[in-house]
Amino acid sequence: MAAWARAVRGLLLDVSGVLYDSGGDGGVPIAGSVEAVRRIKASGLKLRFCTNETQATREKFVKKLQGMGFDISVAEVTAPAPAACRVLKERSLRPHLLVHNDLVPEFAGIDKANPNCVVIGDAAENFTYANLNEAFRVLIGMEKPVLISLGRGRYYKETDGLKLDVGAYMKALEYACDVQAEVVGKPAKAFFESALAEMGVPPQEAIMIGDDIVNDVGGAQGCGMRALQVRTGKYRPCDENHPHVKPDAYVNNLAEAVDILLQQL
Amino acid sequence: MAAWARAVRGLLLDVSGVLYDSGGDGGVPIAGSVEAVRRIKASGLKLRFCTNETQATREKFVKKLQGMGFDISVAEVTAPAPAACRVLKERSLRPHLLVHNDLVPEFAGIDKANPNCVVIGDAAENFTYANLNEAFRVLIGMEKPVLISLGRGRYYKETDGLKLDVGAYMKALEYACDVQAEVVGKPAKAFFESALAEMGVPPQEAIMIGDDIVNDVGGAQGCGMRALQVRTGKYRPCDENHPHVKPDAYVNNLAEAVDILLQQL
Repeated sequence: MAAWARAVRGLLLDVSGVLYDSGGDGGVPIAGSVEAVRRIKASGLKLRFCTNETQATREKFVKKLQGMGFDISVAEVTAPAPAACRVLKERSLRPHLLVHNDLVPEFAGIDKANPNCVVIGDAAENFTYANLNEAFRVLIGMEKPVLISLGRGRYYKETDGLKLDVGAYMKALEYACDVQAEVVGKPAKAFFESALAEMGVPPQEAIMIGDDIVNDVGGAQGCGMRALQVRTGKYRPCDENHPHVKPDAYVNNLAEAVDILLQQL
Repeated sequence: MAAWARAVRGLLLDVSGVLYDSGGDGGVPIAGSVEAVRRIKASGLKLRFCTNETQATREKFVKKLQGMGFDISVAEVTAPAPAACRVLKERSLRPHLLVHNDLVPEFAGIDKANPNCVVIGDAAENFTYANLNEAFRVLIGMEKPVLISLGRGRYYKETDGLKLDVGAYMKALEYACDVQAEVVGKPAKAFFESALAEMGVPPQEAIMIGDDIVNDVGGAQGCGMRALQVRTGKYRPCDENHPHVKPDAYVNNLAEAVDILLQQL
């Protein structure tokens, strides 16, 4: 019997590296994950997809996953861009966007004239020398620079290799402008709490499954949830010696986690 | 009488922002600086140009300054690339270079096959998304990543605006790979010490003049030298409230510093 699997009512699943490996042409499902999502839904467990994906609107992202065979809808996804929009509206902030072209529609309802903050996401090919300098100049020109980051990931894995994630570029701007970014995606506490609220499950009865030891596992545990690390995606063996974060358990992949969880129901 | 100007035998001059403002087409001398260098040389004071410039070989850099009218030769310049080459040779390191195209010839005598470290300089247009990912992959693939940085500047000023400097990109790689870069340019102590040794002047009798509060002023003071900040180049009024570094004096520009210094001789 796996102690970590007891009394679970809700599941939060990271997407990239847990459901699929992303790549230039869209990505490839991780073996067993399509079926695992189907089995979770059939079991009656509450489910929420909790992603730091900021290379596409939720609509486009969900369509890609449906194309791979996943049973997923936009309403089931918690993502950083809508969280950022809430913050921008609450504080009357007008962003200069350094994000992926495909994410821009998420900010359609936001005033961007005469910017008084910078929002940075995983801009990928938009992380050009010119664009980074431009975002830097907007920030350094403010009396009190405000930098909002849609995550703090170090890197992720695509089919053609590891890529620097938004966190690395966030650090570059933080250092250049001597500011601290406000992170609205994982591992921010508010982000996990909104996912839990959307499921209607308290943290003690929820479990996060992710491939990122800090952003998924550390972040979820910081909210009082249990968290598993899968040995897929960006997982590396040295993660198991992480100085600060220890998952409640390791599993080889999502399918194995679901096997164990469903045996406990 | 200016106390900071007494008993000086040697001068270290930062170049960009003190002698000239750099720009796409080469740059423009700062008013009075050409004449100021000439007067220092005529006075018998020892002189060393101490730059973190890594966008060109020393030969090309010196030719540009001569073209603006400065009396300067390659033998008078202390720069990060030769310092890095000494470190690479001493420790049998084979670099993957993320530097400006025009700096590559400085590494001509260095074995670069099968790299076991990354050297990062102010690569400017070479700071592309693809090149940063490549440098990152080389580093993260090492058992113990070694990152050597030719400076830690935050930003600098060109005629068309502020630009992110090597330090920002260094921070991005440090964060992504969880390593600490070894800095070989200013403000590294070894760098100032080699400039002093080349002049044959002890730190108590030398003075550094620069526009960078941390890398020029803080670095030189950390070696026991006096240091002035000029109000040209990247200087900003808020530098005068820096929490850690306080120059021995401010001067409006190099010409003013030289006026005061020569009155004391």
